[in-house]
Amino acid sequence: MLNIRYEKTTAPKELPAADNPLKFGTIFTDHMFLMDYEEGKGWHDARIVPYGPISLEPSAMVFHYGQEMFEGLKAYKTEDGRTLLFRPNKNAERANNSNKRLCIPTIPEEDFAQAVKAMVKMDERWIPTKPGTSLYIRPFVIATDPFLGVRPSNRYLFAVILSPVGAYYPEGLNPVKIWIEDEYVRAIKGGIGEAKTGGNYVASLASQVKAHEEGYSQVLWLDGKERKYIEEVGAMNIFFKINGKVLTPELNGSILPGVTRDSVISLCKHWNVPVEERRISVEELYEAGKDGSLEEVFGTGTAAVISPVGHLRFEDHVLMVGDGGIGEFSQKIYDTITGIQLGKVEDTLGWTVEVV
Amino acid sequence: MLNIRYEKTTAPKELPAADNPLKFGTIFTDHMFLMDYEEGKGWHDARIVPYGPISLEPSAMVFHYGQEMFEGLKAYKTEDGRTLLFRPNKNAERANNSNKRLCIPTIPEEDFAQAVKAMVKMDERWIPTKPGTSLYIRPFVIATDPFLGVRPSNRYLFAVILSPVGAYYPEGLNPVKIWIEDEYVRAIKGGIGEAKTGGNYVASLASQVKAHEEGYSQVLWLDGKERKYIEEVGAMNIFFKINGKVLTPELNGSILPGVTRDSVISLCKHWNVPVEERRISVEELYEAGKDGSLEEVFGTGTAAVISPVGHLRFEDHVLMVGDGGIGEFSQKIYDTITGIQLGKVEDTLGWTVEVV
Ligand SMILES: Cc1ncc(COP(=O)(O)O)c(C=O)c1O
Ligand SMILES: Cc1ncc(COP(=O)(O)O)c(C=O)c1O
Repeated sequence: MLNIRYEKTTAPKELPAADNPLKFGTIFTDHMFLMDYEEGKGWHDARIVPYGPISLEPSAMVFHYGQEMFEGLKAYKTEDGRTLLFRPNKNAERANNSNKRLCIPTIPEEDFAQAVKAMVKMDERWIPTKPGTSLYIRPFVIATDPFLGVRPSNRYLFAVILSPVGAYYPEGLNPVKIWIEDEYVRAIKGGIGEAKTGGNYVASLASQVKAHEEGYSQVLWLDGKERKYIEEVGAMNIFFKINGKVLTPELNGSILPGVTRDSVISLCKHWNVPVEERRISVEELYEAGKDGSLEEVFGTGTAAVISPVGHLRFEDHVLMVGDGGIGEFSQKIYDTITGIQLGKVEDTLGWTVEVV
Repeated sequence: MLNIRYEKTTAPKELPAADNPLKFGTIFTDHMFLMDYEEGKGWHDARIVPYGPISLEPSAMVFHYGQEMFEGLKAYKTEDGRTLLFRPNKNAERANNSNKRLCIPTIPEEDFAQAVKAMVKMDERWIPTKPGTSLYIRPFVIATDPFLGVRPSNRYLFAVILSPVGAYYPEGLNPVKIWIEDEYVRAIKGGIGEAKTGGNYVASLASQVKAHEEGYSQVLWLDGKERKYIEEVGAMNIFFKINGKVLTPELNGSILPGVTRDSVISLCKHWNVPVEERRISVEELYEAGKDGSLEEVFGTGTAAVISPVGHLRFEDHVLMVGDGGIGEFSQKIYDTITGIQLGKVEDTLGWTVEVV
């Protein structure tokens, strides 16, 4: 149990106006959670202080050697005024899996959860209530040792910041166009692909820029070894509904284990909808498109929950999915998960945690 | 040509004592070079200011999405008091190759060189003179946009900091033990392996920690696809002398194109020593070890110049190289390059640049 020290802001900011579209990740709340790590001393000095700049030596290892880990989850306001988190324990667990791969000291899961809850409680007034909005929570760790040379840092900073957000994809629930990448590679088994860390995202930028120029909103990555098997989208996992069956690539060591992905799989099982985690080749996907068995394609992630895919392109081959709208199953998944998140649908799987 | 603004420190630090071993990357000089980038405005406000902390928003993209690039080169003091840089244009060029892969705006090569020279001139008194010491120069760029979401940043900071250094490897020119990694992967073609960026180094830590625990000082990486071909060492390229021929893995898209690597290849050509850049499998290496044709193994990098390898291990197979000392050819390369760097050997290839 952390003993959190509080230093409240004396200059609370004005909340965004009700008609503010809350462009994702641009507005931050009044406070931030900070906690330091030092070799020999462990994690210490947990504190909630006014949101503001962080001061680091130019030699701080995070600037040079990429030792950084982040997480992303959301808090929602229910109609009856309660504040709910969605499966925060999954993020605490994934944070530590990332930490281990990155040689960052782990954070006790209950401390991670406590930090998140304390921050959300502190800045509760910032949780927006319009449909589709929420309070995005960004816990992250950075290596702060002022040292040049390749080794794990001896000092770290763990922070939690909050941002009221609207839709991540401007398209909302309209199907997006996806570019299947055949030149760049995001991650490979044995690498850092299953950790949530900056190196994977910077690796994806060049492809994303290229896809945008071609009019595609997201990139779908293939495995780095054979360049045949589907992995995931820029910031989403990917699902296919083929012949009544729900398919998603198995966690093979280079894919981020998404919390939303896990929730979709659990719902399928709960509903007795056949679901398979396995290798899926681009060829299989295009075959299913050709013979008419490909019913729906959707991405899953905290930011958009569900993002239907209506158009894919691999080299010169375009594959159209559905009729330009969201598929029936995608819609059902979206309604169920957002319903649970907002306290409107019964939480039979015990996913929400109330912040009190 | 940059118009550099100067703000000199009013509190110059004391130089390290003459008997200070100058542990690599721990001591920094009096000043730092900074320059900002903003979309639409380009690179601007070049300045040399007192060395000190950098203040960034907690949402600065570098903390989350790994958009960071760094370089490393050295300045040397000659016996007659001149200050020499070693091939700084190669670093300026590589910096931009990295920048392009990472979607960071490029820096005009002459501006990069000017910033480096101006900093070295400014803190010239910090260049140590004892044998084996030098002034390590670390130019780097970080993404500073206060934004959560995956896209290239619109703002960056370019900095140059300096650190007087002794030997990078405590072993000095004594042969090191190298662990050939068979579980983790550093980089893959299509990824970011040929860029000098944090993501590659954080990916290497877990293996390095494991190797250290086993008594090995460095990790040798294999290709991520077939796990058969030799790539490079943690922070060095690798060379083999087999049957009178000098071999090094070809630049295949996942290896950092080292300046020292390039210098060794150029010297071989200059000396008419046969040299080949090509794929080299672990099997070939071990075969050469077995049949007695493996003469020398050495790593190359700015930090140590040449680091002889006396012992390799792949899975359960140990391969011993040489007689426990540095090989003849390795020594010749070391003497020539350090001789040129210190102005003691004629610089026939035009590699040094004097800072005046
Ligand atoms: C690369 C990547 N894949 C998948 C996801 C989806 O994960 P989650 O459902 O936990 O948000 C994300 C997350 O945001 C991601 O960055
Ligand atoms: C991964 C890696 N390979 C090789 C090298 C050697 O490059 P250089 O000779 O330019 O120092 C380095 C650099 O320092 C490195 O970090």
